[in-house]
Amino acid sequence: MVNETQQSCSASSSSRSDGGSSSGSESSKDNSRCSTPVLDADRHERLREKMRRRQEAGDKWFSLEFFPPRTANAAVNLISRFDRMGAGGPLFIDVTWHPAGDPGSDKETSSMIIANTAVNYCGLETILHMTCCNQTKDDITGHLQKAKRLGLKNIMALRGDPAGEEWEEEVDGFNHAVDLVKHIRSEFDDYFDICVAGYPKGHPEAESYEADLRHLKEKVFAGADFIITQLFFRPETFLKFMKDCQATGITCPIIPGIFPIQGYHSLRQLVKLSKLEVPQEIKDVIEPIKDNDAAIRNYGVELAVSMCRELLDSGMVHGLHFYTLNREVATTEVLKRLGLWSEDPRRPLPWAVSAHPKRRVEDVRPIFWASRPKSYIYRTQEWDDFPNGRWGNSSSPAFGELKDYYLFYLKSKSPREELLKMWGEELTGEESVFEVFTCYITGEPNRNGHRVTCMPWNDDPLATETNLLKDHLEKVNRRGILTINSQPNINGKPSTDPIVGWGPSGGYVFQKAYLEFFASSEIVTALLKVLKKYELRVNYHIVNVKGQNITNAPDLQPNAVTWGIFPGREIIQPTVVDPVSFLYWKDEAFALWIEQWAKLYEEESPSRMIIQYIHDNYYLVNLVDNDFPLENCLWQVVDDTFELLN
Amino acid sequence: MVNETQQSCSASSSSRSDGGSSSGSESSKDNSRCSTPVLDADRHERLREKMRRRQEAGDKWFSLEFFPPRTANAAVNLISRFDRMGAGGPLFIDVTWHPAGDPGSDKETSSMIIANTAVNYCGLETILHMTCCNQTKDDITGHLQKAKRLGLKNIMALRGDPAGEEWEEEVDGFNHAVDLVKHIRSEFDDYFDICVAGYPKGHPEAESYEADLRHLKEKVFAGADFIITQLFFRPETFLKFMKDCQATGITCPIIPGIFPIQGYHSLRQLVKLSKLEVPQEIKDVIEPIKDNDAAIRNYGVELAVSMCRELLDSGMVHGLHFYTLNREVATTEVLKRLGLWSEDPRRPLPWAVSAHPKRRVEDVRPIFWASRPKSYIYRTQEWDDFPNGRWGNSSSPAFGELKDYYLFYLKSKSPREELLKMWGEELTGEESVFEVFTCYITGEPNRNGHRVTCMPWNDDPLATETNLLKDHLEKVNRRGILTINSQPNINGKPSTDPIVGWGPSGGYVFQKAYLEFFASSEIVTALLKVLKKYELRVNYHIVNVKGQNITNAPDLQPNAVTWGIFPGREIIQPTVVDPVSFLYWKDEAFALWIEQWAKLYEEESPSRMIIQYIHDNYYLVNLVDNDFPLENCLWQVVDDTFELLN
Repeated sequence: MVNETQQSCSASSSSRSDGGSSSGSESSKDNSRCSTPVLDADRHERLREKMRRRQEAGDKWFSLEFFPPRTANAAVNLISRFDRMGAGGPLFIDVTWHPAGDPGSDKETSSMIIANTAVNYCGLETILHMTCCNQTKDDITGHLQKAKRLGLKNIMALRGDPAGEEWEEEVDGFNHAVDLVKHIRSEFDDYFDICVAGYPKGHPEAESYEADLRHLKEKVFAGADFIITQLFFRPETFLKFMKDCQATGITCPIIPGIFPIQGYHSLRQLVKLSKLEVPQEIKDVIEPIKDNDAAIRNYGVELAVSMCRELLDSGMVHGLHFYTLNREVATTEVLKRLGLWSEDPRRPLPWAVSAHPKRRVEDVRPIFWASRPKSYIYRTQEWDDFPNGRWGNSSSPAFGELKDYYLFYLKSKSPREELLKMWGEELTGEESVFEVFTCYITGEPNRNGHRVTCMPWNDDPLATETNLLKDHLEKVNRRGILTINSQPNINGKPSTDPIVGWGPSGGYVFQKAYLEFFASSEIVTALLKVLKKYELRVNYHIVNVKGQNITNAPDLQPNAVTWGIFPGREIIQPTVVDPVSFLYWKDEAFALWIEQWAKLYEEESPSRMIIQYIHDNYYLVNLVDNDFPLENCLWQVVDDTFELLN
Repeated sequence: MVNETQQSCSASSSSRSDGGSSSGSESSKDNSRCSTPVLDADRHERLREKMRRRQEAGDKWFSLEFFPPRTANAAVNLISRFDRMGAGGPLFIDVTWHPAGDPGSDKETSSMIIANTAVNYCGLETILHMTCCNQTKDDITGHLQKAKRLGLKNIMALRGDPAGEEWEEEVDGFNHAVDLVKHIRSEFDDYFDICVAGYPKGHPEAESYEADLRHLKEKVFAGADFIITQLFFRPETFLKFMKDCQATGITCPIIPGIFPIQGYHSLRQLVKLSKLEVPQEIKDVIEPIKDNDAAIRNYGVELAVSMCRELLDSGMVHGLHFYTLNREVATTEVLKRLGLWSEDPRRPLPWAVSAHPKRRVEDVRPIFWASRPKSYIYRTQEWDDFPNGRWGNSSSPAFGELKDYYLFYLKSKSPREELLKMWGEELTGEESVFEVFTCYITGEPNRNGHRVTCMPWNDDPLATETNLLKDHLEKVNRRGILTINSQPNINGKPSTDPIVGWGPSGGYVFQKAYLEFFASSEIVTALLKVLKKYELRVNYHIVNVKGQNITNAPDLQPNAVTWGIFPGREIIQPTVVDPVSFLYWKDEAFALWIEQWAKLYEEESPSRMIIQYIHDNYYLVNLVDNDFPLENCLWQVVDDTFELLN
């Protein structure tokens, strides 16, 4: 009767403790329990395990291929595309290797840095392509070491195109992808998941289709974990290839590469590069409409959807790999029509998780960077450990200084002209600053008819959750309480709640009300008088740019302001108001006035001086209402403050 | 305006991070934030700091002196007296040093082991007395090292009485308490808090009162932290002494030693030992009633209360030290009448905290040992680290084996005859076992008219909290669900709640419903069928003595079942249901059937065979209802199980 869900974890204590004199924690290494609650099993698995688990569960998935951009501005756009397309739930993305673009360098357009950004700042499982021909072993090892250091865990091992027309094999050199696969396995053991390319029609340079299958098998047997194929135009091409692979003894996953035709010219270019032939039936449709981009794209979407359906229906295909050409519309459309695009509002944690393996246990962050998660990741990138369970257990690590406000992944998506339209070509006083904050909250156009869709502290429109507080926020911003972060109190909503929910289902989430704002010293003086009445209920931190700091927080302890209770798990408290971190955040929050706003204007201009005045004289305030089951009292605190001022 | 509660914690990030390349956690050692939420400031302070804080706050306090018992049975009783008198809130207790009783040994009656038990198992701040005459430096250092190892932090440094009548000073020996004070400070630096004795009438062997004051000053200046005085009979004796001490330049706390007269003979004996004279006005009262113990005790209480009042009213006295003579009634009565006895239902954590300095951060424990905290402390005494914040972050240390069920501090307070009366002189079948469990729950007498006030798994009557579940528990025990641990669900009651509250005020406490019981395999078979309906809601662990283990807990993760949310703090989750620990607890829980119950009966006797049968065939089950905001479903689960069985 007792043989269901048997777990072989018999703890005969006599076998564990030898005489009682050995240290308990030493003698327990035999236990394989993971050290933190697995909120999202995905976070703890390597890519090949994720694939296996998805396949076993019968879940279909997709992945997206991008190439590195040419310019810094294009990099900014690509990163925000990662964020948008990441929301659709790709199993991974991959970034191609551009030998001509200094791919392993630290340039913001290099393959390495784009992949690094995808993993660390966008939280995407990422494969970095790497080619090996015309490169020394040391170069390649250097690239791989760097990739590992940056937290990349997956490599697509390719030969690459030889530099000249003449292809000469080098003795002991890297002549084929298989050499790179072997090199990775011999130098890095099992650290990387390795992907290799498959050619459904055979590699154009291979002696034959069969010879090419043999090469593929060699790559797999040298240690590749899965195969992504070159694009193809007919589902039967892939299905035959897959059967042939299996017949040779290849058992790893083979993922079809899907190329939604998006335009006449991009198709011609790709075909030329890949030495593929476009089937006549496709040419017949495309040629007559070759100048109508929209028509070609519609056709491309139609064609891709029907091919994907056939592949998925075959039962042999579990995942689809899309060649996006760095574009969103066609691929997104195909995925939506296939039902694979899953903009799941469910989040493992209330904030976006980084995919760096060092950060896999991270589950607590200060609330201050809620709207600037990339800056938080940047400023903590040198940390050896990331807080989990409790923020206060970490030895309150120092934050890196943020000097590089113009790093492409930290930069505002909006160009200067747009920012000026939103925030005012010319400011006439503090009140015109209040107006900007108010317009951002209300979503209504400013006096010049422009909507304010971002602020120096929030590069995106108001979060859905913040909308719950909109009326209150509007009222206080009009009067000079310039809010930059806030959350409502939540007393046990289901973890599946579409707005405030996060974590596994079946749980309950909670929040303490939080409000963070800039305010003049007059307001702060009144506020402090009002706060005396709330001494036991409201915790506050008030600081100016010089670091004068007023607080009633005991012992510099963090205050948990978001937490969740889940079935069968320990408690997760992903956001805290941490007094120590607040002083680091203060530097950034004040600097953003100058870096993002004041510098839009000429030096010595009145507009710039107004922002500089606020920067020099205002206080940054945060308030927590500890009585989360009661009605949020922070609005009352603010009302009382205004009343006192009148 | 901004100068209230100023904290000098300016975090100029430029001064903290040097170039961003250093490890964040390395460069942050300058931060003095304590690593865990301070639930109870007391836990983190040394005794002299506690005294200072109490004095600054104007809080009066008391302490209690005990001497080591002569027999093992007396030790059992003394430990349960520690528990009872500890509930009144002494600032510390002290244990005298009996040179004749092998005081530094591992005997259960030694001063060292009694003090160790008070600190580690009763959670009491403890001072160990130590005398130095007639001992070698090595002996003394050995004792001090052992005390330190055991977690003792305070020493009362005494000379002790010379072995013979003749008192000869040894050259370079320990001739005076001051030598011991110096030795402790030179060998152990500031590790120990040191107390020394003061003689309000002068030491009987001192040349003069003034010479004795000089000796006292020497002891203080050699490094003593505070003074406890010898007993005295008139408040003015102490107050004069205190002024004289201050006049010589002694500024440390001086605590009056209070001796409530408890009987004619004990008074005579003490007076003889201390060479004090009883004032005539006391003799006049006592002599006529010398054979009436109760009358003398009443008088002693009256006298002590009036003396203590006078001392406290003087404004010079902040704490009172009681010579208890290991008795409870008189001292407790005096303290209650003074209003110092504070049976504060407020608990820093839901379980009794150990006072060992290594355990000061401990704030998570498995729920299983809730009724056997001393056993838990015993089985974890070798751990180097104690879980805090999250249980799962500790590397699930192994538990020491519990073989020594008869260690005096783990033993039942009731002797064998009483246990037999409670649990049955003769068992007739499993049903008579069910009856014992039921009587323990209801508090009604068993069929022989005896109340069952303890069980092998609970040496105390039912907890107040468990009373909330009494009706349900009675019903299920009658039918063979033999409960040994349970808690109701709590959805955010104030932390000051007299029954379920714990932790600082202003917080909210929560619990998931928990039920743990033994049951036959028939019941377990039915239960497992029923549990399928509750798969997402109820987590279960079911195990038999052989270790066959059935569970639906994911990944061996702990489930937090008690937690609290407090103003300005991170979340505390002091109890978890931990699957790994459960298998260690299982060994102990099953063994208790045999060790505590079966062995009351003759081998081969039917009673013993019944208990042995249960031990061999029953399962130990625990259930958690994860939906804490809803009505506890575990009773429904049990009802459904019985229904299925019918």
